[in-house]
Amino acid sequence: MEIQSFLKPIIRRNDKKIIFLIADGLGGLPGEGRKTELEAADTPNLDRIAGLGTTGLFHPVAPGITPGSGPGHLGLFGYDPVEHDIGRGVLSALGLDFNLRKGDVAARGNFCTVDENGLVTDRRAGRIPTEKGAELCAKLLRISLEGVELFVEPEKEHRFLLVIRGPGLGHEVEDTDPQITGVKPLPARPREDGSARTARIVQVFTERAGEILRDESPANMVLLRGFDTLPEIPSMEERYGLHACGIAAYPMYRGISRLLGMAVKNVGAEPAELVEALRSEWENYDFFFCHFKKTDSSGEDGDFDAKVRALEAFDRIVPGILELGPDVFVVTGDHSTPCFLKSHSWHPVPVLLFSPTCRPDDVQTFGERACTHGGFGQMPMTNLIILALAHAGRLAKYGA
Amino acid sequence: MEIQSFLKPIIRRNDKKIIFLIADGLGGLPGEGRKTELEAADTPNLDRIAGLGTTGLFHPVAPGITPGSGPGHLGLFGYDPVEHDIGRGVLSALGLDFNLRKGDVAARGNFCTVDENGLVTDRRAGRIPTEKGAELCAKLLRISLEGVELFVEPEKEHRFLLVIRGPGLGHEVEDTDPQITGVKPLPARPREDGSARTARIVQVFTERAGEILRDESPANMVLLRGFDTLPEIPSMEERYGLHACGIAAYPMYRGISRLLGMAVKNVGAEPAELVEALRSEWENYDFFFCHFKKTDSSGEDGDFDAKVRALEAFDRIVPGILELGPDVFVVTGDHSTPCFLKSHSWHPVPVLLFSPTCRPDDVQTFGERACTHGGFGQMPMTNLIILALAHAGRLAKYGA
Repeated sequence: MEIQSFLKPIIRRNDKKIIFLIADGLGGLPGEGRKTELEAADTPNLDRIAGLGTTGLFHPVAPGITPGSGPGHLGLFGYDPVEHDIGRGVLSALGLDFNLRKGDVAARGNFCTVDENGLVTDRRAGRIPTEKGAELCAKLLRISLEGVELFVEPEKEHRFLLVIRGPGLGHEVEDTDPQITGVKPLPARPREDGSARTARIVQVFTERAGEILRDESPANMVLLRGFDTLPEIPSMEERYGLHACGIAAYPMYRGISRLLGMAVKNVGAEPAELVEALRSEWENYDFFFCHFKKTDSSGEDGDFDAKVRALEAFDRIVPGILELGPDVFVVTGDHSTPCFLKSHSWHPVPVLLFSPTCRPDDVQTFGERACTHGGFGQMPMTNLIILALAHAGRLAKYGA
Repeated sequence: MEIQSFLKPIIRRNDKKIIFLIADGLGGLPGEGRKTELEAADTPNLDRIAGLGTTGLFHPVAPGITPGSGPGHLGLFGYDPVEHDIGRGVLSALGLDFNLRKGDVAARGNFCTVDENGLVTDRRAGRIPTEKGAELCAKLLRISLEGVELFVEPEKEHRFLLVIRGPGLGHEVEDTDPQITGVKPLPARPREDGSARTARIVQVFTERAGEILRDESPANMVLLRGFDTLPEIPSMEERYGLHACGIAAYPMYRGISRLLGMAVKNVGAEPAELVEALRSEWENYDFFFCHFKKTDSSGEDGDFDAKVRALEAFDRIVPGILELGPDVFVVTGDHSTPCFLKSHSWHPVPVLLFSPTCRPDDVQTFGERACTHGGFGQMPMTNLIILALAHAGRLAKYGA
């Protein structure tokens, strides 16, 4: 992202405080009655702030591109999600609150089913229960390989995290997951010389896993993909001079916060806990990322009424947050999750920014259609943090 | 700017005339009554043209970035302000109408105060009166160094311009201004070998200046910063095939015009003089940049009523300009200068383009909120000249 090259010299520090209140999967599509979830929800607090602030529609990655959680959040914090690619393995580690260290190689694993000839018949082993997955992970911990430490952590159902720790590892290893059935798991091939030893380690791990799981059913083999190491990402402090704190109930979002050098604060799923955490940390940081999950999960479930209720619960925490007196208050999402699609989508996300230096627009409610007429128009999500810094008086004039 | 790479082959010349009427610091923020300066001003002529033309909001550098005068104007003429960085010294020279030549090294100077140990106690020497600054500059002219010619030109108060002219100079010299008090002026260090001799010249100049000013009070030393030479910028003629003329009352804007290869025309501060100058040069050029200053200076003063009056005076010159029959008439600013902030700001600038090939939009008044709904939407300012060229029939079809 070109803007970063000239941002550094104009960054200023002050005591102004910025809040990013993020409703995961905020944007939606109409249900019956031609209203989106956000338009159907009763959100008097957000509507009032929309009337005072500036609104718009922002694109997390690019128009038409549906972001995963990683890219969606990177964009929020101004990190170009295309430039900063976070591998599946690292995201898994972040999502488990696994304390990944520099140089660790992480991969996403699947328990799968192979037939008597070793051909994959089910890439997900019939989605075995999470408890079963945990039990199998414990068995795989028996594998010990010279010179490296291995971690096998269960995720949901058939999914697990593999982490290889040791000196001189490389992450340029091809997936062993063939992505189709009827073939054998692929051999672990290095994409460059520096990853040759790591590929051999992965290959031996896979073979030993096959031996250990031989008599299991249906999960009698493993597939691995998305080998990666912690990316080199400048922290929010280095990049923006922001002393930042991420507040989230789900490990994935604490993980992303940690990746960007934020302090992290663990909270429960109850929305009011976000406000409580914010209040208790208010004096300690100048940037707060508050993550609200329920809007996304109800969207993924395709439950329109549940998403409407989640949005209404989200709206109710706004007054408590405003009482703290943030200098810049931003409300948006990391992507859209329309109930109609039961998944993340590419639709741009409503954004609302409120500060004394806001140029008001004609928008009086916070919704997708209303924000089409907002003062920000439509722009890439990576601009949002720059705008927040500007409104916080944290950017000096560019050039004389 | 990427677009330039394919622009050259499609540039066409014809007899169509383009006017850029620029109100410096045009954009604003609401005062009491929630109207911006431009929304509060009575501007019947601009409103009428807004109703006939196409409008929008343009970003001078990038969303959230506050431009200085240099970057703001470069963007207007389609020169990417990040790619074309103009140093402080060169801008000072432009602002004084100093005829800087290729290879001259220019720096912004401050008279400052140092104590008996040579430590800086006031970087601006108590902002000495402009007359005093001029007197001290005359004294510094006594300094003579072998092989180079020196120019010391007073600016406002404690500020001056230093120009070093001679063969084989380099501008990669670090500032001697430490930007803080309590320390000595920094030695002039070269950033590369080709600037080593220049750095020595600067060092000797600084030492001699200290001797000459020793008994002065409070201005007994000099600080220098922003060493630079005239940048290599293709002219408007080379780049767009435009025979261009800049009309401005302030030297800075004539200087920027000259930098881009425009002819320059000096006028008085009275708005009607812009129209007079335009009329007298009408047959001689095909692109006119007319600069109106008062909107920016009243914004910097934070005087809402004065900015409203400046905008109304600006509006009154529009009919006289339209009488000349420009083929493309553009009205905008180089950046926003809201009275609320008393400074330049990052807010996008209203743009109005009027020509027979305009696609009309629903906008009927010229104001920030109205332009949010304009036919151009929001875009980078560097697009504006391309749009003007298109409407002037000066761009051929791209590709077969």
